[in-house]
Amino acid sequence: MAKQNIQTLKGFRDFSPKTMRFRNEAIKRVREIFEKYGFEEIQTPALEYQEVLLGKYGEEAEKLMYLFDDPGGRGVGLRYDLTVPLARYIAQNQDTPMPFKRYQIQPVWRADKPQRGRYREFLQCDVDTVGSFSPIADAEILAIIWDVVQNAFNFPDFEIKINSRPVLFSSMEKAKIPQKKWPSVIQSIDKLDKKSRGEVEEELHTRGINGDQIANVFSAIDKAKPDNYLRQVVKFAQNMGVTNLVFTPALARGLDYYTGTIFETVVTKPKIGSIIGGGRYDKLLGDLGGPDLPAVGTTIGLDRCMDVIQELNLWKDIPPAIMGLVTTFDKKLSYASINVSNILRSGGINNIIFPDFEKNLKKQFKYADKLNIPLVFIIGPEEFESEQVTIKNLKTGIQETVLQKELVDKARLHI
Amino acid sequence: MAKQNIQTLKGFRDFSPKTMRFRNEAIKRVREIFEKYGFEEIQTPALEYQEVLLGKYGEEAEKLMYLFDDPGGRGVGLRYDLTVPLARYIAQNQDTPMPFKRYQIQPVWRADKPQRGRYREFLQCDVDTVGSFSPIADAEILAIIWDVVQNAFNFPDFEIKINSRPVLFSSMEKAKIPQKKWPSVIQSIDKLDKKSRGEVEEELHTRGINGDQIANVFSAIDKAKPDNYLRQVVKFAQNMGVTNLVFTPALARGLDYYTGTIFETVVTKPKIGSIIGGGRYDKLLGDLGGPDLPAVGTTIGLDRCMDVIQELNLWKDIPPAIMGLVTTFDKKLSYASINVSNILRSGGINNIIFPDFEKNLKKQFKYADKLNIPLVFIIGPEEFESEQVTIKNLKTGIQETVLQKELVDKARLHI
Repeated sequence: MAKQNIQTLKGFRDFSPKTMRFRNEAIKRVREIFEKYGFEEIQTPALEYQEVLLGKYGEEAEKLMYLFDDPGGRGVGLRYDLTVPLARYIAQNQDTPMPFKRYQIQPVWRADKPQRGRYREFLQCDVDTVGSFSPIADAEILAIIWDVVQNAFNFPDFEIKINSRPVLFSSMEKAKIPQKKWPSVIQSIDKLDKKSRGEVEEELHTRGINGDQIANVFSAIDKAKPDNYLRQVVKFAQNMGVTNLVFTPALARGLDYYTGTIFETVVTKPKIGSIIGGGRYDKLLGDLGGPDLPAVGTTIGLDRCMDVIQELNLWKDIPPAIMGLVTTFDKKLSYASINVSNILRSGGINNIIFPDFEKNLKKQFKYADKLNIPLVFIIGPEEFESEQVTIKNLKTGIQETVLQKELVDKARLHI
Repeated sequence: MAKQNIQTLKGFRDFSPKTMRFRNEAIKRVREIFEKYGFEEIQTPALEYQEVLLGKYGEEAEKLMYLFDDPGGRGVGLRYDLTVPLARYIAQNQDTPMPFKRYQIQPVWRADKPQRGRYREFLQCDVDTVGSFSPIADAEILAIIWDVVQNAFNFPDFEIKINSRPVLFSSMEKAKIPQKKWPSVIQSIDKLDKKSRGEVEEELHTRGINGDQIANVFSAIDKAKPDNYLRQVVKFAQNMGVTNLVFTPALARGLDYYTGTIFETVVTKPKIGSIIGGGRYDKLLGDLGGPDLPAVGTTIGLDRCMDVIQELNLWKDIPPAIMGLVTTFDKKLSYASINVSNILRSGGINNIIFPDFEKNLKKQFKYADKLNIPLVFIIGPEEFESEQVTIKNLKTGIQETVLQKELVDKARLHI
């Protein structure tokens, strides 16, 4: 077998125990916030029929899909996001009580060009309310975003940009852009957070928009105001404690299916760009052949958020999962080691028994050190004889010999 | 779009909020036990190069794999289990301190014929120790299995069958079976837990084993005894508290890569069959082109375990995630509802604000009832005027009107 292919696929990553501790902590915090706001979890399969996936996201997206025939010859694909699977779920479960407030935390796959912050398998944390036109539903999604960014992730500098498709369309009307050109104009002005006005003008030119029209577009956007619905959303959100909302009339969001409120959260320092996007999509469920229900929701891109948390070193004190290493002296005494390990495990102290008793204590200590295990428990012949255990704290250097029956209490004092 | 394809793929399932509550509880309990024994989590991508997947599991397994070309034309496949990805991870991370004690909880995909208890996407919970030949490592895996089945899942009737490949091979030698026929003989006798001796004899005949050889095989198996290593494993496991171990000399385990101890846990009442399998595989990592390291581990098939838990109604009291519904009266009072919801959420009481304030209270109560939400919080004009909230407990029927400032304490008394 060729050695060069014994590796992860390009654009894909393994997660080490250390990385998983951070990811699990993040998922736990996000989950707690979703449930605080009354959302419940569902999961859907990784694979969907191609009929479910195609025609929902636009052509560019479809190029990035993992589409193939399964061993039975059916055209299938890996899910591209969690929104279309939600729509399919609703279509299939029409007795679901409405409004349906669901969250979903699962990976999605896109064969995108791998680069910093962009992976081919990444975890989306979606939260959506289906079946309500109320601006309270939009506001709650904003409250969740704010709570996650502010309290779960502790990002110091961020903005939640909001706009709505009706506001955007009204700008297009005011600028007298012919309706068939709206999609390409909207796509260009959506880039105003990354590109200069000049660059966007250039792009609009190449897309066949003339100079007058371009001037009109910028003028309409500069004068745009939130409509009644959007004002209501903002007021409700503020009542839920949301700050950092910024009305951004050029914000468009790429995906075709949004119909109302749209929002995007950006980390402003360091300038990482969009980490959370979402909005209202009142037509998608009907389009999919399901019931004609409104919906609003957001997607938290966990991988990019983890990058920010790591880059800013925001979380310093994730506790280790394993608190102790129980050493083994020889085969006979390994039963005593097992006994000590049992006592600690029953007492809630997660620990490893070093299984290879032929290795000397120095090697066993080195192992604990490499794994960042704070406590080592030693059972040599003397300890065994006197029903004792020696506790060595690798962080403080403190060492003490204690009775086995006091072991859990004594060990806890070191934690 | 054709309506008939707006559904989950055949053999795949969605998980509703209620199902997810049970699954999440199971995963939480399994995870706690894995960490108690000092194992740490890793994750690997869903997709692997075909070179990593092929030639590891045998021909029959390969027919069930989801293999395809990715959009870049690379031959890839969905992971078939979590053991080969672990081997690939080790090969790629050769600086990992040994022994490496890892767990992994991720779905795997097999295009198997869908039937009761068999799904095409299912969740495996794997726990493995890499880098140790010690029987303590085998014993710990058995201790984890026992702890999960006994304490996490509360299965009333189960057996942990154990055997080892050397014991099995020694039976083959004693029965004078030519070595090239071992795989097919072993495959047949492995079915003795599902089929009668007569049926297995029949199968051996059709595989070209003559009558004398068949008699020898059964005789060798009846007389087989654990070897020294296996006895050691059992003794260590018993010292860790493991019961229900049953030496089963015909147990083979289908997968080609096992080299030492093998085990399989079966639920005996109801007769559901194997839910957890595993063993020692000391050659796989080297075969994969990685370092030549021994390993032992097990796979908990979570989906089948959930079926058993549901069938036996073993878990009766999973608490609801959402404790309250806050009603809305009209647009003006909806700000008061938001305020009450905020107070409850800050106080740790997860709740839904009913977003559609044009719907009458009766409909809102019905919604709470359908979602099994125990408490409803009502803020009408009178409550608003007097800074109060009415709490209605849908489980007991008790209703009381309390001051907003006492709300969290009063609500807690109902939980």
